[in-house]
Amino acid sequence: MAKGSVIIVSGPSGVGKGTIVKAVVEKRSDMFLSVSCTTRAPREGEIPGKSYHYISEEEFKKKIEENYFLEWECYVGNYYGTPLSPVLSAMEEGKSTILEIEVGGAFQAKRRYPDAVLVFVVPPSFRELKQRLETRDAGNEVAIAAIEKRMARALEEYEKIKDYDYIIVNDNLEEAIENLETIINAGSLLVKNNKEEIEKIKNN
Amino acid sequence: MAKGSVIIVSGPSGVGKGTIVKAVVEKRSDMFLSVSCTTRAPREGEIPGKSYHYISEEEFKKKIEENYFLEWECYVGNYYGTPLSPVLSAMEEGKSTILEIEVGGAFQAKRRYPDAVLVFVVPPSFRELKQRLETRDAGNEVAIAAIEKRMARALEEYEKIKDYDYIIVNDNLEEAIENLETIINAGSLLVKNNKEEIEKIKNN
Repeated sequence: MAKGSVIIVSGPSGVGKGTIVKAVVEKRSDMFLSVSCTTRAPREGEIPGKSYHYISEEEFKKKIEENYFLEWECYVGNYYGTPLSPVLSAMEEGKSTILEIEVGGAFQAKRRYPDAVLVFVVPPSFRELKQRLETRDAGNEVAIAAIEKRMARALEEYEKIKDYDYIIVNDNLEEAIENLETIINAGSLLVKNNKEEIEKIKNN
Repeated sequence: MAKGSVIIVSGPSGVGKGTIVKAVVEKRSDMFLSVSCTTRAPREGEIPGKSYHYISEEEFKKKIEENYFLEWECYVGNYYGTPLSPVLSAMEEGKSTILEIEVGGAFQAKRRYPDAVLVFVVPPSFRELKQRLETRDAGNEVAIAAIEKRMARALEEYEKIKDYDYIIVNDNLEEAIENLETIINAGSLLVKNNKEEIEKIKNN
């Protein structure tokens, strides 16, 4: 990807977008993965400061007022937001940024970075997605109760896929990781990401 | 690439787009490379029926009248055109088609196939392009005399690059081949090329 590009990865809760994104960022030193703030409770296995910055709703609302976020939204009762300043620092260093954000936030970020590449991760089927959520949240009654709500939200968001550039079906994880890398690599070949290079070739 | 997609590869004469395209098609059985008709004389090393179908200007003009071509144009005094029927056959077989065509023809083809992906192959510099043409055409006085014309045309066409999707700099051949494959692979992940798949996932 050309220096300082933005790749936005969305997809329904439970689809595994976080795993794909993390695998790609671990492989590539030219990518920066933004860590979001959230007001939801940490899930098992999540690491504060790495998975999310866990903050209170009061703190979150204060940060909104301070223009702390590149984008933020309220999703199934919890707030999520991308801190702006780490993204700006990464771009100054010439890194590309991956934002893993929900659909509403994705379009907010796209307005700020019109050349951002939008990627939507989907399950092999919606039936499979529901099963994954049930497995993930087994034993957590509050989360289980929210599954129907999440599924309804997922179906609603799915309609927005037409405004995305790329789709990745997360059937086989290795393949999904490879596909995200292909998208990033193709992004670096887009004409709109090579305007300076194109001028240079003409004048030499 | 989704079944039956069209990838259009353009670039100035002498940039090596033919070599890149042939290498990719040899590697992949899911791609069909269209062979154009031309009224220009065969160059050394070119194979009739494989490099081009060499036909007379009279024949060419007759074929234009018969709607034989998907696109055609007159380029630096010679006619070039893509026969339509082999492309239709390949697409019926579920193959994707690569068209190696000049800028004018590329936009004609894009009007017919609006989802076609447009790729522009460029030299590392225009100075380098001129040297390549001088080497390639050494000993051929007619071709050498046409180099200035070709360079002027190349610069003129270069302005159209902004209407293309991707750019490949043909500096290192292996890398250029890999980049075309990346573009083809990313193309198969475009939302617009997966409309049926997207519906299927929702309903399952």
